[in-house]
Amino acid sequence: MQIIRAVDWNPDGDAVRIIDQRRLPAALIERDLHTLDDVCDAIRTLAVRGAPAIGVAAAMGIVVALRSLTHQADDAFRATLRGIAGEIRATRPTAVNLPWAIDRMLARSATVRGSPADILEALREEATAIRDEDRAMCERIGTHGLPLIPDGARVLTHCNAGALATAGIGTALAPIYLAAAAGRRVEVLVDETRPLLQGSRLTSWELTRAGIPATVIADNMAASLMRAGRIDLCIVGADRIARNGDVANKVGTYGVAVAAHHHGIPMYVAAPTSTFDPATPNGDAIEIEQRSADEVRRGFGTLTAAEGAAVHNPAFDVTPAALITAIISDRGVHRPPYDFAPMAPETAAVPA
Amino acid sequence: MQIIRAVDWNPDGDAVRIIDQRRLPAALIERDLHTLDDVCDAIRTLAVRGAPAIGVAAAMGIVVALRSLTHQADDAFRATLRGIAGEIRATRPTAVNLPWAIDRMLARSATVRGSPADILEALREEATAIRDEDRAMCERIGTHGLPLIPDGARVLTHCNAGALATAGIGTALAPIYLAAAAGRRVEVLVDETRPLLQGSRLTSWELTRAGIPATVIADNMAASLMRAGRIDLCIVGADRIARNGDVANKVGTYGVAVAAHHHGIPMYVAAPTSTFDPATPNGDAIEIEQRSADEVRRGFGTLTAAEGAAVHNPAFDVTPAALITAIISDRGVHRPPYDFAPMAPETAAVPA
Repeated sequence: MQIIRAVDWNPDGDAVRIIDQRRLPAALIERDLHTLDDVCDAIRTLAVRGAPAIGVAAAMGIVVALRSLTHQADDAFRATLRGIAGEIRATRPTAVNLPWAIDRMLARSATVRGSPADILEALREEATAIRDEDRAMCERIGTHGLPLIPDGARVLTHCNAGALATAGIGTALAPIYLAAAAGRRVEVLVDETRPLLQGSRLTSWELTRAGIPATVIADNMAASLMRAGRIDLCIVGADRIARNGDVANKVGTYGVAVAAHHHGIPMYVAAPTSTFDPATPNGDAIEIEQRSADEVRRGFGTLTAAEGAAVHNPAFDVTPAALITAIISDRGVHRPPYDFAPMAPETAAVPA
Repeated sequence: MQIIRAVDWNPDGDAVRIIDQRRLPAALIERDLHTLDDVCDAIRTLAVRGAPAIGVAAAMGIVVALRSLTHQADDAFRATLRGIAGEIRATRPTAVNLPWAIDRMLARSATVRGSPADILEALREEATAIRDEDRAMCERIGTHGLPLIPDGARVLTHCNAGALATAGIGTALAPIYLAAAAGRRVEVLVDETRPLLQGSRLTSWELTRAGIPATVIADNMAASLMRAGRIDLCIVGADRIARNGDVANKVGTYGVAVAAHHHGIPMYVAAPTSTFDPATPNGDAIEIEQRSADEVRRGFGTLTAAEGAAVHNPAFDVTPAALITAIISDRGVHRPPYDFAPMAPETAAVPA
């Protein structure tokens, strides 16, 4: 099984190598980001996307942007680092992993007493650690979720919570990759995920590349496939999970959950514990980003809705915990009632 | 309120005037179909679409194709009529109104004993009658459905069962047009209706042109709007209604019905009684047309899914009667349990 790497060092270690997701599925273009501008543009234009992948790209991007500047005086170098961190942080306002990764890089730099070259070396180590931890997190989600994917399973997913969204094998798709690697037959039904089509453009691409059968459907076809007995379970990712288990994820997730509930089909959410937000008591407290009308009105470069019509285009919706069979994280499989109290970073305090 | 005419005679009566629906919503282009080839191309390429509108266009098309041929001998003229009828009938295989309208035209011609000019005159009358009956049917659906649309109603619809699909004010949209004409405030939430976007391209266009507020959403957003209390009722059309009330309609209708049921929102289907099919006992007996994968894979001229991925693209789905609050027809509002016994054409035998 050939799992792609959405974000990594290039072989020489002097650039961030990404798969340009704007070009998928028509072309697989790897791009090496050599400069600060390269990194910022790639994040801003969604060449690299998915909250974990963005965090890794940002951390590596700091190193790439600094590597030719170690001749600077110590104070100047630290000031340059802060400026670069601020520029990358500003590329996208909402993804939680982006500021998290940047803060972690800055904190690491503060522990170094040596020269700019020493600081750079420490930052390189930290970025590599962020990448490796992300990969390990994906593997753990996959391992915890594996028992939920029986041989012959037909799995519905929505949007892309796969390898392209992380430095590893993804979140929602991780158990599927491990099931396939274990020799189980798995078929994935892929919601195309309007308006930006992350399901058809990205998920179907990475699955078929890995040799896993994928069938793309329009979002509005999932319910009738459930009624026909052609879907055994659903797995999606998450953008934020409230303390009570309510899940914010790509818009359309809630409709999948309602249909799954109606048909008695398990609805699983897979996400790292860093997605858990104990400070948010429930889904009502989650702000939903509204995006440009043109994503719906002319998403394919063609005018597809009347100019005079309004457009409602939320990026996410909230699925109440009552519709979620279980949440698969890097710490285990969580089942209702959910109560995600704050967890210390290192202690694996799985909620009761 | 300005209701468009999807299909009608042109002012001189020597052509079928249609709105070219391939060009909507970007441009309102009326086209006059002067020849048999014009008529067949327009139906085949969906320039005119919607089962009732196709029936009207086919009937008028026979007249247009014959009008310069009345110099033929009687037998030759009748043979030409049969040939033309066969060509138009073959343009689309599944729409039930197309063969129905053509058979009705042939039956009318058989009642005429006179010259080719007399036959042509009778056929013109018959085509005009089919148009007028279709308009009246739409009005009656609207009148029967009007009490279901309260002032301030926020109505979800799927696909296009509006004026563009008929010679009149539509089926699902007819009660909405009459409610607006009666001064009620109505807002329509319009599912874009992947893959061919009849909702965003056509429904949002005809509603806003009539001055009715329309908001386009991706199909996957309807459920979360229901949860937010922003949808009061749903109305959709139908392609075939089985004797037990199961409804075949544009794919995605079933998902709307499941979500409406989950939220306790009324789910109405509006259709002429000609759509009722007493010979089909239930939805399981309805064959679902599978359409080209490229409608999903490259529907907008861009590759949007992996070449190696399969595509599932049914044109319709079946909504079981249990999820349908009521069926609005030209004969009244039918409520469960449904049992649509065969109805005589003229007697308004509304099922018990």
